[in-house]
Amino acid sequence: MDNLFAEACANGRQAAVLASVESLLGWDERTLMPPQAGSYRAEQAAAIAMLVHRQRTSPQQGERLARLADSPLARNAPADVVATIRLLKHDYDKQSRLPPRLVEELAKTCVEGQQAWAAARAESSWPKLAPWLERIFALKREQAACQLPDRDPYDALMDDYEPGARWTAVAERFHRLRGAIVTLVQDCVGARQRPDDAILKRHYPVAEQKAFVHEVAARIGFDFGRGRLDTTDHPFCSTMGPDDCRITTRWDENFLPTALFGVLHEAGHGLYEQGLPRGWYGLPPGEAASLGIHESQSRLWENMVGRSPAFWEWCFPLARQAFPEALGGATAQDVQRSLMAVTPSLIRVEADEVTYNLHVMMRFDLERAVVHGTLQVADLPEAWNERFAKDFGIRPPSAAEGVLQDIHWSGGLIGYFPTYTLGNMHAAQLMAAAERDLPELEREIAAGRFTGLLDWMRRHVHQKGRLLESEPLVEAATGSPAAERWLVESLRRRYGAAHGLA
Amino acid sequence: MDNLFAEACANGRQAAVLASVESLLGWDERTLMPPQAGSYRAEQAAAIAMLVHRQRTSPQQGERLARLADSPLARNAPADVVATIRLLKHDYDKQSRLPPRLVEELAKTCVEGQQAWAAARAESSWPKLAPWLERIFALKREQAACQLPDRDPYDALMDDYEPGARWTAVAERFHRLRGAIVTLVQDCVGARQRPDDAILKRHYPVAEQKAFVHEVAARIGFDFGRGRLDTTDHPFCSTMGPDDCRITTRWDENFLPTALFGVLHEAGHGLYEQGLPRGWYGLPPGEAASLGIHESQSRLWENMVGRSPAFWEWCFPLARQAFPEALGGATAQDVQRSLMAVTPSLIRVEADEVTYNLHVMMRFDLERAVVHGTLQVADLPEAWNERFAKDFGIRPPSAAEGVLQDIHWSGGLIGYFPTYTLGNMHAAQLMAAAERDLPELEREIAAGRFTGLLDWMRRHVHQKGRLLESEPLVEAATGSPAAERWLVESLRRRYGAAHGLA
Repeated sequence: MDNLFAEACANGRQAAVLASVESLLGWDERTLMPPQAGSYRAEQAAAIAMLVHRQRTSPQQGERLARLADSPLARNAPADVVATIRLLKHDYDKQSRLPPRLVEELAKTCVEGQQAWAAARAESSWPKLAPWLERIFALKREQAACQLPDRDPYDALMDDYEPGARWTAVAERFHRLRGAIVTLVQDCVGARQRPDDAILKRHYPVAEQKAFVHEVAARIGFDFGRGRLDTTDHPFCSTMGPDDCRITTRWDENFLPTALFGVLHEAGHGLYEQGLPRGWYGLPPGEAASLGIHESQSRLWENMVGRSPAFWEWCFPLARQAFPEALGGATAQDVQRSLMAVTPSLIRVEADEVTYNLHVMMRFDLERAVVHGTLQVADLPEAWNERFAKDFGIRPPSAAEGVLQDIHWSGGLIGYFPTYTLGNMHAAQLMAAAERDLPELEREIAAGRFTGLLDWMRRHVHQKGRLLESEPLVEAATGSPAAERWLVESLRRRYGAAHGLA
Repeated sequence: MDNLFAEACANGRQAAVLASVESLLGWDERTLMPPQAGSYRAEQAAAIAMLVHRQRTSPQQGERLARLADSPLARNAPADVVATIRLLKHDYDKQSRLPPRLVEELAKTCVEGQQAWAAARAESSWPKLAPWLERIFALKREQAACQLPDRDPYDALMDDYEPGARWTAVAERFHRLRGAIVTLVQDCVGARQRPDDAILKRHYPVAEQKAFVHEVAARIGFDFGRGRLDTTDHPFCSTMGPDDCRITTRWDENFLPTALFGVLHEAGHGLYEQGLPRGWYGLPPGEAASLGIHESQSRLWENMVGRSPAFWEWCFPLARQAFPEALGGATAQDVQRSLMAVTPSLIRVEADEVTYNLHVMMRFDLERAVVHGTLQVADLPEAWNERFAKDFGIRPPSAAEGVLQDIHWSGGLIGYFPTYTLGNMHAAQLMAAAERDLPELEREIAAGRFTGLLDWMRRHVHQKGRLLESEPLVEAATGSPAAERWLVESLRRRYGAAHGLA
């Protein structure tokens, strides 16, 4: 049995080697690849993806996992071995239940769908995207029925991003969260002292931004011996080996937060990746627990740390040195306060920390209704606009600023949106627990010492890999069941202070 | 039969897709990869290399090629189809005659050998490298005997780099060339007017060098829509798709030629790669004819064009604008003359255009003697030093500056060295023919117009792919049998003028 386990792990590691090559192809495509190399890159990526799929669904591996799952090892071995067997089998079964025809059709349709989306958004033309979304939602429902036939179809789709999640529980939590956030947004918008972000819109030369954000990322703990920072259009973090995690950002010389908070966010993802158990790379104990937990790490460094007064106490002198013209006459308080502006706006990716969750919860409700068949794709624009007016008090003036703004659905990422707000919830809960366990935390951050916080995350989150699902992981880390109230409290405390609310 | 041919080509193209992914892994390793990612990168590269090998040696492909080689298609089809069948079969037979054990042992030993070489060179310790070279030469002899058992073993090894070459013919040509070059070097060293390269050693800021060499590369025709220029330690050119050719260089702020001639050299390789028939990518008609022909293209742009008075007539104003401090008081003639200094020196990669060939011919003689068993690996240092004293009038003061200076042997590249001087010979012969066919060439270059020369190379060299071996290709392009006299004449004319020789 031990031999069989070793063989199953070897297969998993070999698939991970190839998958990591696929990551490099994708990273290179989005950062450096020459403009005309795109069509051949698609062939390269497809060839490697096919090899990964073949390795992951090999019949020998299926046999090994079936025998292991029936063996005493699956119950009596150490926890990481038990989890490895269970999760390899879960993943194998899901993968191999997809007929190759559907794998291919999904891959092809989602690539073409994304291209259609780009054209439709550029022309603000819903009719150009609608037929693609019809096909993609239909294919995703088919995928759900094949992969996890006993689950609710939306739950089956969420399982790719948030293993084990159930929409009923998520919806209940989001419902309570939404009420609290709508109230907070009204309070902030109606407040007498509203933060103003003019200071962030001064001139911040890109060369100086590059050196500055590199220093900040290294200081919070991102290891440049095992990673890089590069430029891209749509920032992301990508891992292509146990010692190779690459973050990316874009630069706006007239708006400092674009790069700084982009890098804090992606470096948060990177710290998680760099902190996963290295010896288990390519197997479940070396994998992230879920996208929600991943997002908790990026949001924690971006928002809970990066927008805090303590952080700016340390960071401001560095920033003023980098940007003497923009920040010469300013104070740490000026910058920190300017980062707390709350303003309902049309575009999710430009939203502030508070209203962001309203964007996410709305998409969660809409995509779920389509998957469940209670909303037709054709009715999405109207449903979008109505809901937006209700939550934000604005009706999107165009489809491009409404239903066409996100790439997710056209790329087949359905069931993905809720992980953003789940991540925010987990971030707040984890941060509250870290503050409780580390009484010196605020002082440490104000002195530019981040190892206490990072070590806490390493110990309670990163080192756990994928052994627990998100909620048990958060509960084990914090001592309390996962809940939305930490996020409500965190937002109310921090944004209340910035807006002079009682 | 047409179907069979299509299938054989599809197999070749699929192998090329994977091989191009291997190129990306190698390029990334040498330009951007985080320092600690090396060991996993080796696993990634080995996994892809194994897949390429498996694809290239699949029994079905062997059967297809055997049937095609016996069919009328192999004789009566258009030339590119005939050549494709012949060369795919040649490559297949060579590849599949290597036992997997030897493939693996060669790959492993050469990686470890290179690491041993780096350590040995750093300590200038021959005994640290000697046992590795013993093993590597033995393995390469074994490879030669497996792959092309009917050929002389050195010819069999050369076949990987210079298909069809025979050492007897190469040695004869090199013998005549060596005599002429030794005389020219003596004349240059003894000349009254010796060029002085002090002007090249002024301060050339790296940021300005980057913009300058980028412009020069684009101007000679390197297509940045289908390529890139990046930074590395040991410059190279690498192709990872029909529209993705990447050149690299290093920068020395106190010596302009390092980057400028590095880029002209690598861009010369790149122009060849970008000019190969795109529709045949991954198959012989879309491949380079040989490393010698490849080197002819890099050397042509680096030396025949880049060191010419006409080139500097165009380039100098651009250079003075980029480096006003270094070149403010200088003239185009000053710079061009400074590039013609001839000085016997210890290190091949730092040698001038004339003495460079003496380095190469010496390595050709030494490595051949070891392969033929007339020289023992243990006796290499002494043989090196004696020959060096004879050709250069200097005895290397240390092994690091002598027998340990090159990476080639420790990396298994045996039979590779002669391609450098063959490339120089071909470059001179091709340039002479282009000058004959394009009477305006010098004036065109002086005006910064390079398309005439590039089109000539496209038509006579690049578009021919691998249909002909090097010498027939050069003969077809120039109308004369490949010979060393063009190089002798070119060097004597150009360096004679710069040294005021009769």
